[in-house]
Amino acid sequence: MRATVMHGAFDVRVEDVPDARLIEPTDALVRVTQAAICGSDLWPYRTLPASDTGRRMGHEFIGVVEAVGADVRTVAGGDLVVSPFLWSDGTCVFCREGLHTSCLHGGRYGSDDVDGGQGEAVRVPQADGTLVALPVGEDDALLPSLLTLSDVMGTGHHAARVAGVGPGKAVAVVGDGAVGLCGVIAAKRLGAEQIVLLGHHPDRVALGREFGVTDIVAERGGEAVERVRELTGGFGAHAVLECVGLEQALVTALELARPGGAVGRVGVPQDETFPGGIPFWKNVHVGGGPAPVRAYLEELLPDVLDGRIEPGRVFDRTVTLDEVPDGYRAMNDRESIKVLVEL
Amino acid sequence: MRATVMHGAFDVRVEDVPDARLIEPTDALVRVTQAAICGSDLWPYRTLPASDTGRRMGHEFIGVVEAVGADVRTVAGGDLVVSPFLWSDGTCVFCREGLHTSCLHGGRYGSDDVDGGQGEAVRVPQADGTLVALPVGEDDALLPSLLTLSDVMGTGHHAARVAGVGPGKAVAVVGDGAVGLCGVIAAKRLGAEQIVLLGHHPDRVALGREFGVTDIVAERGGEAVERVRELTGGFGAHAVLECVGLEQALVTALELARPGGAVGRVGVPQDETFPGGIPFWKNVHVGGGPAPVRAYLEELLPDVLDGRIEPGRVFDRTVTLDEVPDGYRAMNDRESIKVLVEL
Repeated sequence: MRATVMHGAFDVRVEDVPDARLIEPTDALVRVTQAAICGSDLWPYRTLPASDTGRRMGHEFIGVVEAVGADVRTVAGGDLVVSPFLWSDGTCVFCREGLHTSCLHGGRYGSDDVDGGQGEAVRVPQADGTLVALPVGEDDALLPSLLTLSDVMGTGHHAARVAGVGPGKAVAVVGDGAVGLCGVIAAKRLGAEQIVLLGHHPDRVALGREFGVTDIVAERGGEAVERVRELTGGFGAHAVLECVGLEQALVTALELARPGGAVGRVGVPQDETFPGGIPFWKNVHVGGGPAPVRAYLEELLPDVLDGRIEPGRVFDRTVTLDEVPDGYRAMNDRESIKVLVEL
Repeated sequence: MRATVMHGAFDVRVEDVPDARLIEPTDALVRVTQAAICGSDLWPYRTLPASDTGRRMGHEFIGVVEAVGADVRTVAGGDLVVSPFLWSDGTCVFCREGLHTSCLHGGRYGSDDVDGGQGEAVRVPQADGTLVALPVGEDDALLPSLLTLSDVMGTGHHAARVAGVGPGKAVAVVGDGAVGLCGVIAAKRLGAEQIVLLGHHPDRVALGREFGVTDIVAERGGEAVERVRELTGGFGAHAVLECVGLEQALVTALELARPGGAVGRVGVPQDETFPGGIPFWKNVHVGGGPAPVRAYLEELLPDVLDGRIEPGRVFDRTVTLDEVPDGYRAMNDRESIKVLVEL
């Protein structure tokens, strides 16, 4: 069969490869009818070291099931199906939590014995957990939109979800590529009141406006941050969608967020980690800062008054006001956990 | 009156300062009865450049209201009150959202005309928004615990809240100081099933056990990460409380989190920002990673089928399989937003 193989930077070829075939009883063999090129495919396109074997490409596709292994139950020959960009078993602890990207028995397309999506056919492992049957025909006008559910639309949606987009929220979208534009669709769909798109390509921002963008910011860096602040009442955006994957884009996204706001980053980083070592692939959230103690006082006060919690036990030394200097010394020398000053 | 003044590193003095007094009609004058030394006071204790004027210290205190300005309504002379570590108006947009630390008209103790808490009396600005009256007497045995609500207990609670601690969750606490120990109390209070404390001071981990710690990890760095993984079924903790404030502690916290987990960081960083430029003071959340598209497919599919969203419009070029190499080129040259491959 024919499939896309990347042999090095700027060296993409369509060539003969071994036919896709069933291997495991949980596999499905899917004849691809539509595939897509992903923004993340452009990283290796620019940087992949040259090799004879090359890398099989493509992880977004729709196709028709040609055959299934003995254990497959949810799809059958003839079904039109869409695949997420990773395959997953649907039953492990992470899949059950909705984090299929961390599936204990999942993996990527285009590696080992699993074909890439930019080719005539794909062996799909864990077919029951991976594939979703589509209730439309092979010529349906909705197929391009259905194809985006394999990656780019779900990715924009993820950014919006993680950033807490909801009714009344001011949203800023960093990146006017396909993911950013799908982030606009997602923000609109989730009820955002204001959607600011940072971008300067006329055709892209025009499509963004049709998808629901309320304000365009063509400036970059510090000027963009200033402009978004002006547009959002002086505070910044409640939710920022980082849809680029470059360090500078994340820094800008953090600056665009208003106090208490959130950044949902989905741009695939060029390295496995992001600045500060925040791991991308495991979908960890990081939050915090100074505690709004005034807000928590009402919640915690009854528990202290009723004796349900005894945080005062962290004080292991009491000093008078005149003894405060020695209190500092004791805490600094780790003689004391925390010092109480009794006046 | 007498108050604590830090004149430089390791140079804390208790000395005569001008008497605290009402200035604004929204002020209260509070005679301090209990104060505390905060772990964050130790940063300037180790690093403050020497000066004659020095810095007034202390931001955790309980006291008795001696006088109030003409506009104060919620507290009155004779009330025993606790103050959060920042003062806040209680009415601005951020206070109404529960983020009093970003109050538009708030500020810190020990700066300009506002006294520090480690002294005989304090002028408390925005008294109505700041002070909380306590329904106990001046000699109540609960006062040490009530004093912790000014900062350290609320801070541990914030870490737990931000990290999403709840019933059934495995929690790791980085730091066995007062904030970490209060984080243990908070995690227990919010229903955590497992609480792993990273610490090695015998007296502190012993107190941690009384507060609800289920496992102690005395190792550091990579060994600690490995040990926590073993203790949590191989995956890491759902919620990690970073209660130190050093870069290495945040890196460790990120490593301790399981996929889909969260880090609540409340350790005050020595710089205004954290690695990667994540701002501390504005309480921004950062999350994201690869989208669990399989989970989102069921949510988004009906919207595509009904035509409510049209993400397929991001495809602005269609190629055959043989034309895929030119599709890569077109996307890389920004001639195309996204390319569809029709087989």
